[in-house]
Amino acid sequence: MRMYDIIQKKRDGGELTKEEISFFVKGYTNGEIPDYQASALMMAIYFNKMNYNETLELTMEMAKSGDNMDLSGIEGVKVDKHSTGGVGDKTTLVVAPLVAAAGAPVAKMSGRGLGHTGGTIDKLEAFDGFNVGMSMEKFTSSVNGIGIAISAQTGNLAPADKKLYALRDVTATVENISLIAGSIMSKKLASGADAIVLDVKSGSGAFMKDDKGAFELAQEMVSIGLGAGRDMVALITDMDQPLGKAVGNSLEVIEAIDTLNGNGPKDLEDICLHLGAHMLLLSKKVGTIDEGLQRLRGVMESGEGIEKLKELVKNQGGDPSYVDDTSKFKKADIVKEVLSEQEGYVYSIKTDEIGRASLVLGAGRENKESEIDLSVGLIVEKKRGDYVRKGDVLAVVHSSSAEKFEEASRIIRAAYSLSEVRPADEKLIKGIVDKDGTRHI
Amino acid sequence: MRMYDIIQKKRDGGELTKEEISFFVKGYTNGEIPDYQASALMMAIYFNKMNYNETLELTMEMAKSGDNMDLSGIEGVKVDKHSTGGVGDKTTLVVAPLVAAAGAPVAKMSGRGLGHTGGTIDKLEAFDGFNVGMSMEKFTSSVNGIGIAISAQTGNLAPADKKLYALRDVTATVENISLIAGSIMSKKLASGADAIVLDVKSGSGAFMKDDKGAFELAQEMVSIGLGAGRDMVALITDMDQPLGKAVGNSLEVIEAIDTLNGNGPKDLEDICLHLGAHMLLLSKKVGTIDEGLQRLRGVMESGEGIEKLKELVKNQGGDPSYVDDTSKFKKADIVKEVLSEQEGYVYSIKTDEIGRASLVLGAGRENKESEIDLSVGLIVEKKRGDYVRKGDVLAVVHSSSAEKFEEASRIIRAAYSLSEVRPADEKLIKGIVDKDGTRHI
Repeated sequence: MRMYDIIQKKRDGGELTKEEISFFVKGYTNGEIPDYQASALMMAIYFNKMNYNETLELTMEMAKSGDNMDLSGIEGVKVDKHSTGGVGDKTTLVVAPLVAAAGAPVAKMSGRGLGHTGGTIDKLEAFDGFNVGMSMEKFTSSVNGIGIAISAQTGNLAPADKKLYALRDVTATVENISLIAGSIMSKKLASGADAIVLDVKSGSGAFMKDDKGAFELAQEMVSIGLGAGRDMVALITDMDQPLGKAVGNSLEVIEAIDTLNGNGPKDLEDICLHLGAHMLLLSKKVGTIDEGLQRLRGVMESGEGIEKLKELVKNQGGDPSYVDDTSKFKKADIVKEVLSEQEGYVYSIKTDEIGRASLVLGAGRENKESEIDLSVGLIVEKKRGDYVRKGDVLAVVHSSSAEKFEEASRIIRAAYSLSEVRPADEKLIKGIVDKDGTRHI
Repeated sequence: MRMYDIIQKKRDGGELTKEEISFFVKGYTNGEIPDYQASALMMAIYFNKMNYNETLELTMEMAKSGDNMDLSGIEGVKVDKHSTGGVGDKTTLVVAPLVAAAGAPVAKMSGRGLGHTGGTIDKLEAFDGFNVGMSMEKFTSSVNGIGIAISAQTGNLAPADKKLYALRDVTATVENISLIAGSIMSKKLASGADAIVLDVKSGSGAFMKDDKGAFELAQEMVSIGLGAGRDMVALITDMDQPLGKAVGNSLEVIEAIDTLNGNGPKDLEDICLHLGAHMLLLSKKVGTIDEGLQRLRGVMESGEGIEKLKELVKNQGGDPSYVDDTSKFKKADIVKEVLSEQEGYVYSIKTDEIGRASLVLGAGRENKESEIDLSVGLIVEKKRGDYVRKGDVLAVVHSSSAEKFEEASRIIRAAYSLSEVRPADEKLIKGIVDKDGTRHI
């Protein structure tokens, strides 16, 4: 078998066989196939696409390319949750303790990630002493003991994907639905969960800018997961404005605590309850989504959810008193309001720009070497459909310097589009994709 | 400017600017742009093509990427001749002396090349002592003195093309008309001729397998040359069977000598006279093609053509007595006939397979390190339309071993398709492309 023939076949519109895909993934991972042949293949795939079989084989091969997590030591059905990423997305911090409190094992491995804020792992480090590195033994015994553990990714998960994604990123070959879905799913499959709940974001703050693309990506990922023998469901959710109000690391942790205490923003609570209900359903702890929603509301109201968060923090070496007294989280030097200079209904928010403001403040990573400032970020005070008067507070910025405050303020103000007419309401949860098909809601 | 944006632009169907093409060619040549980005761009070009402006700019940039030959020391209009390559193509060995004898300067730089036989340079080395390496001074003074010099390429011509072609060759991105034309023309432009006569071959023994592709390539190359300020003409000629009878190095030199003496195969003589007439026309030595043909027939019949070949050989250190006594060329150990096992009209000849037989015998290079055996090859005795009886000689093979003879025989026999019906005659010269457009003949 020759890589040249594989490139040529895809270039000419052919379907790659299981053997050809395996040859490519193995050869590329071990360095026998050079970058320049891989990038030519990626561009040919960009133009001629891959069908379902090819996509599934590519994903499975990438999943097999490194370590595969063995979660068999954990009792029960292991359900993972994955979000395609958005601005203000702190759902894991809420959903994980709630679901664990409701009785389903939560064995969550999470990454740090690049972007406008850190990943779940970074955010948890806002708790003084919190340890995100765990041995597999401690991870397993924690889940079996208190029902929950959240650890930084250990091992070498899907190195083929890591290498290929880095190549696609510099050769303009990212934007292909099979390759995007395969990249995400290869890591999820290697992580070893029995079932996966996907939160596919759609809108100006998401990777997928419109519903069409988001549904397509959701369908592709669900098909891959089902093909790989996992239980799957995807929720397509709104990311045309930040989720909740907080954007930043400590700020998002605080908002998650508020939400577990029943005092969170309505949109965040809603999405968390629905994601959690689907997790309970897939883990067979409930029989219907409604039952799942009811169970989760129950553990929220009883305080079992917030208690589970404290148990998690304590078990991993963190200081659980932060949960009861959120003033203990490190505060930014400057906390200052951004005032509106115009008047009207908030018609739209360039959500990616809100993310950029957060990045400018230092809450996220521009590259792997960037240091994150956990204390900085912003609280969005006006959301879509709200009426804004001149001088009203659009957002509260937490900054480490006056210069960064000014730059972030400019970006935030420019991100808001005001209008004389109130925009139509948008659905928070736009649809569901699972083994029974696709439902727009 | 970023290479990423250039790839993305072409991927999305955009037209690259002069500046973007220059940035790419310069950056790729000096190693700042990596292979993996270049191959992604090549694949995007494969799918989305380049228009005339892009093709011209790419070619000019590649031509500028290394040395540019300065032929200004040579008097008169310098006309180059280039063939896209075929089996039995020894036209340069005939045309160059004829045209020089007719009064136009022939300053020919030639390569060694990979394929079924060596290049012109290799063939000339069949003359004992012939020296293909020349200083620019000696080259210039030779052309000014005796009207002709044929030298191995000196200097670093179009290194961008060299690097890019090697990359395309392993990434399945060769087959794009703009890139093929640009690759050939970049070297021709750097070689410094004022005018170029192209011989674009069409058929089973050529790079372009059909007339449509050959005309397209001819048009593309002529447009590029005209755009770069050179006088241009292309002849599209038949390569659905070997040109002449001889395939090999010494064997082709001998056939060229026969042709200069008026005893060559009709097809070879015809093509040589037409190519030569166009060279004389572009060098302004004649006013019409007919006048050119007449002039060339004159120098052939007068013996001035064969004398010019002797002068060339002598001037470059070779033994000119070989021209008068071709038995002096080194002979292969085994000279043996390949007999037909079937009967009928020669309907078609897989010309690329005849080339492969020649390669098997050792007449060509499989890779850069291969040693060429100048003495081996074959004489094709039956051509399209000839009637063949069982036991008739299809070809005479000159081989260094009995094993190679057997293998070549098998290939040659299998290359012939016989039929009860005589095939229609095919035109030797199928058409002409020049500044006035395209004429099918």
